[in-house]
Amino acid sequence: MPIYKAPLEDMRFVLHELYDSKTIAELPGCEDFTPELMDSVLEEAAKFTQEVLFPLNQVGDLEGCTYENGVVRTPTGFKEAYKGFCEGGWTAMGSSPEFGGQGMPVAPAMLVEEMLCSSNVAFGLYPGLTHGAYLSIYHHGSEEQKQTYLPNMVSGKWSGTMCLTEAHCGTDLGMLRTKAVPNADGSYSITGAKIFISAGEHDLTENIIHLVLARLPDAPSGVKGISLFVVPKFMVKDDGSLGQRNGVQCTSIEHKMGIKGSATCSLAFEDAKGWMIGEPNKGMRAMFTMMNTERLSVGIQGLGVAEVAYQNAANYARERIQGRSLTGVKNPGKPADPIIVHPDVRRMLLTMRAYIEGCRALSGWVAREIDILQRSTSEDAKLISDDFTALLTPVVKAFFTDLGFEITSSALQCYGGHGYVRDHGMEQYVRDARISMIYEGANGVQALDLVGRKLPQDGGRLLTRFLDPVLEFIDANGDAEMAPFIEPLQTALEHLQIATGYIMEAGMSNHDEIGAASVDYLRLFGLVALGFMWARMAKIALPKAAGSEFYTAKIGTAKFYMQRLLPQTGALLSAIQSGSETMMEFAAEAF
Amino acid sequence: MPIYKAPLEDMRFVLHELYDSKTIAELPGCEDFTPELMDSVLEEAAKFTQEVLFPLNQVGDLEGCTYENGVVRTPTGFKEAYKGFCEGGWTAMGSSPEFGGQGMPVAPAMLVEEMLCSSNVAFGLYPGLTHGAYLSIYHHGSEEQKQTYLPNMVSGKWSGTMCLTEAHCGTDLGMLRTKAVPNADGSYSITGAKIFISAGEHDLTENIIHLVLARLPDAPSGVKGISLFVVPKFMVKDDGSLGQRNGVQCTSIEHKMGIKGSATCSLAFEDAKGWMIGEPNKGMRAMFTMMNTERLSVGIQGLGVAEVAYQNAANYARERIQGRSLTGVKNPGKPADPIIVHPDVRRMLLTMRAYIEGCRALSGWVAREIDILQRSTSEDAKLISDDFTALLTPVVKAFFTDLGFEITSSALQCYGGHGYVRDHGMEQYVRDARISMIYEGANGVQALDLVGRKLPQDGGRLLTRFLDPVLEFIDANGDAEMAPFIEPLQTALEHLQIATGYIMEAGMSNHDEIGAASVDYLRLFGLVALGFMWARMAKIALPKAAGSEFYTAKIGTAKFYMQRLLPQTGALLSAIQSGSETMMEFAAEAF
Repeated sequence: MPIYKAPLEDMRFVLHELYDSKTIAELPGCEDFTPELMDSVLEEAAKFTQEVLFPLNQVGDLEGCTYENGVVRTPTGFKEAYKGFCEGGWTAMGSSPEFGGQGMPVAPAMLVEEMLCSSNVAFGLYPGLTHGAYLSIYHHGSEEQKQTYLPNMVSGKWSGTMCLTEAHCGTDLGMLRTKAVPNADGSYSITGAKIFISAGEHDLTENIIHLVLARLPDAPSGVKGISLFVVPKFMVKDDGSLGQRNGVQCTSIEHKMGIKGSATCSLAFEDAKGWMIGEPNKGMRAMFTMMNTERLSVGIQGLGVAEVAYQNAANYARERIQGRSLTGVKNPGKPADPIIVHPDVRRMLLTMRAYIEGCRALSGWVAREIDILQRSTSEDAKLISDDFTALLTPVVKAFFTDLGFEITSSALQCYGGHGYVRDHGMEQYVRDARISMIYEGANGVQALDLVGRKLPQDGGRLLTRFLDPVLEFIDANGDAEMAPFIEPLQTALEHLQIATGYIMEAGMSNHDEIGAASVDYLRLFGLVALGFMWARMAKIALPKAAGSEFYTAKIGTAKFYMQRLLPQTGALLSAIQSGSETMMEFAAEAF
Repeated sequence: MPIYKAPLEDMRFVLHELYDSKTIAELPGCEDFTPELMDSVLEEAAKFTQEVLFPLNQVGDLEGCTYENGVVRTPTGFKEAYKGFCEGGWTAMGSSPEFGGQGMPVAPAMLVEEMLCSSNVAFGLYPGLTHGAYLSIYHHGSEEQKQTYLPNMVSGKWSGTMCLTEAHCGTDLGMLRTKAVPNADGSYSITGAKIFISAGEHDLTENIIHLVLARLPDAPSGVKGISLFVVPKFMVKDDGSLGQRNGVQCTSIEHKMGIKGSATCSLAFEDAKGWMIGEPNKGMRAMFTMMNTERLSVGIQGLGVAEVAYQNAANYARERIQGRSLTGVKNPGKPADPIIVHPDVRRMLLTMRAYIEGCRALSGWVAREIDILQRSTSEDAKLISDDFTALLTPVVKAFFTDLGFEITSSALQCYGGHGYVRDHGMEQYVRDARISMIYEGANGVQALDLVGRKLPQDGGRLLTRFLDPVLEFIDANGDAEMAPFIEPLQTALEHLQIATGYIMEAGMSNHDEIGAASVDYLRLFGLVALGFMWARMAKIALPKAAGSEFYTAKIGTAKFYMQRLLPQTGALLSAIQSGSETMMEFAAEAF
């Protein structure tokens, strides 16, 4: 049976030491969120995720959801756990107090989200989708729509979905066919078939509030003719009670590689009554509010699943005895040494650890900037944060989830054959992690967003929001003690700058250069960002390391990252510089 | 539904053009195996695997094997397919004519094996294990044992297993506890519990011939006290008919991530009657005969599953329309372009293709050397081949299977969300491919075998068997036309040589340096080996390219490999040169 213990010490380090949590309470509306309060939130979340959600993770995988005549049942225990989740106020965490939310800043909330993903990523999708739908209504809905839907979504009594994908279109939503015909009463009749709808139907809540992308009869073709509609499963009467069933039915659920506890539904809308959110044909914009949040959340899924897989692998490596150390017996009283004596096992574990803690640190930075963006009264600060989060969103989404899959696979490997069988739970992590590379925009699409859209935007201004603090840090830390961290970072940063220059120039005359470079560039960017995180963490840890296992481990992991992992940037630069020709000259029919 | 078509054109290229198949018939015992005969073997194998085994692949995954009261049932259709497999003579393919085998050289047989793995890797394990057991008995058994068991194993009437692993020992067989107590009649009573026994129990054959590692009562501890025994499920009477059931029972089967059509059994031996194979306490040696073959076969699993995954991804990328090309509409009559217009999709496909064809070429080299080793009358030639196959076995096993997993995952990615659901079959390939990185010696153990054992062996002689032909080829191809292939190969080769020197020197004073470098070194080695393969393939293709899609694609893929993939060697060298310190100084309890 796998184990999970929320990594509170490292989370507190990120929250308090790396990003000085005291400044959070200085933001308007965050006055209550002192470091002490945030700590107790993290502790409560740790308890709930460890004790309630984590024990349901394997059963959720084993049973999966079941479908019968339009009804979807979640796995044993999910209903009770969801009740406890709502009662604990976790659905309300990041929502506005105006609708019953706690108004928690993103900095601590993102750490809670990580725990959710570590303990039970399939379960976490239900409230996750609801929060995304909440955000779209909150930002784009009418006052009446907000009053009608948000309080019950915040309390968790109702849940939400985002209905984008259709069988013939996922990435390319411009092709979507679902129709919305206006009714005399100001509502719309929605008709169409959606697939891959997470939490599209289930037994956790009384009502499900679908956000549906559809076309008006006179809409222009392509993405500029898409509007957003709110379509409740059950109509909501004027007094707030539930009325009749709306014209939306779940026609099947998918049998998937993983996240089996999450219902992935095909939904048929047949003259379902819906109301437009925001303006006609501006649905993509309203949906993007939701999608950006979801993209960060999906990145956190990669991190969360990686964390729990790592914990188990480290634990197993300490306990499993097999063979002897290459440098002589380490465990003379036993017939073999624990496998953690082997350099290669340590290489695997340190690789996981360096990526995980690096990603946690980077997500802390993004979270901090989102809090500033959402709450600061300084327009300058908000602009910087807006640029920064726009730049980093595809990186967090794609880099974290690529790593999540690599790390869970590596953790499985530490178990040998025992990792491949169901009992230890390791193979589930690999299967659960795999989806995060795909949904909310496949990672290749994220890379195109980064390179094709975010880099050139506003004359390259977004990138400076990342480069400036890195360069500043390098300049300020020229001392010998920091040299083992600064020098590799500097080299990697140069690779990133050369790659950026190459793409900007080559991409101008040939757009295929952008696509050819994008995935390697995103990884290069992610590696440099983590390099900066590790240099910053080393800086904090160095004066505190003596006698402290935690800070000593930070420095050790930082060194490992700099020496062992960061040099990958060179190979990525070479790959990028090789350009698009080898790919594009290959005949399509020859593949 | 997935598709599979045996890549006969590329297989024939490897067999005939890259390794001049005419020379095979010059080896003693191979007189019949003309290029024409081998071609018809490949065609027959393609037919059988495509038409009989491939259609059972998804059903095998869906149903898996079932266990009830010691009885194991294989999935629907496996029994009939196995009957056809035997009738087609495929079980007899690589066995000696002395026992009813066809004596087929390894060069074509390995290509047939690849087709088996592409079409149904779970099914392929049943005859695969039998052939491994056949080899151990053939090389180490007594004449009586051979006569008793081999004819029926060759015909496929009986199957075989290799019973090594116990719950507390996998990699470290020195700890195994299964006991063998001598009986007065020369037989032994075997008692112990084995786990992870592929094909340990099933309904495909009348009898199962277990090869079991166990300890004699007076055996020294560790691996030097292990003997090998043959333990039939049903006793074999003097007239060859089956007698009473032996004391071996299947107590359960594993629920695994993949290869669900293959029964992975726990076996309880209770005073089971067995007969020693070879000498007392020399069981590991006899078992290694089987294991080396199995290791190559497992490498081919990685290649085979990658091939079928690639075919589907390429097909999907040509058919799926979604979005538009970055350089303008390519498919004006349709609402979107096929996704194969995107450079990043091509990058994924070409990466798969470059690795797959490179691995097939490399496996062809190994196969050729095994044929020489087994058949040549020249002792010099045999020594070279022995060295070469010993050196390459861990590379084929680990590099091919690491790539197999990466490629299947990448192929899934090409499908987006459709790859994550069961219907398209792509997620099964990822799950099926994952085991090959683990069994027959986890890939980390393969890397240790390469770096810790094969490199230093005989004063480094083994490595020269690889380096010499590469250097010779580089020397002979200094012309401008070959420069785009030779120059990158030369750089990568230098990285390999520097890495080798570093490890030899650092590893002498500190054995942990070997373990720290091993996995990165194996990958570096694999990349260079594939670099050599691509340079050789380019050399053959260049004069034939005009007007030929096949040879043009070869050159295109070679260029892609050289420019896009081979530069990874630089980063691997950096990682290796960073040494073991960052790993070994990290406190075990801090993980």
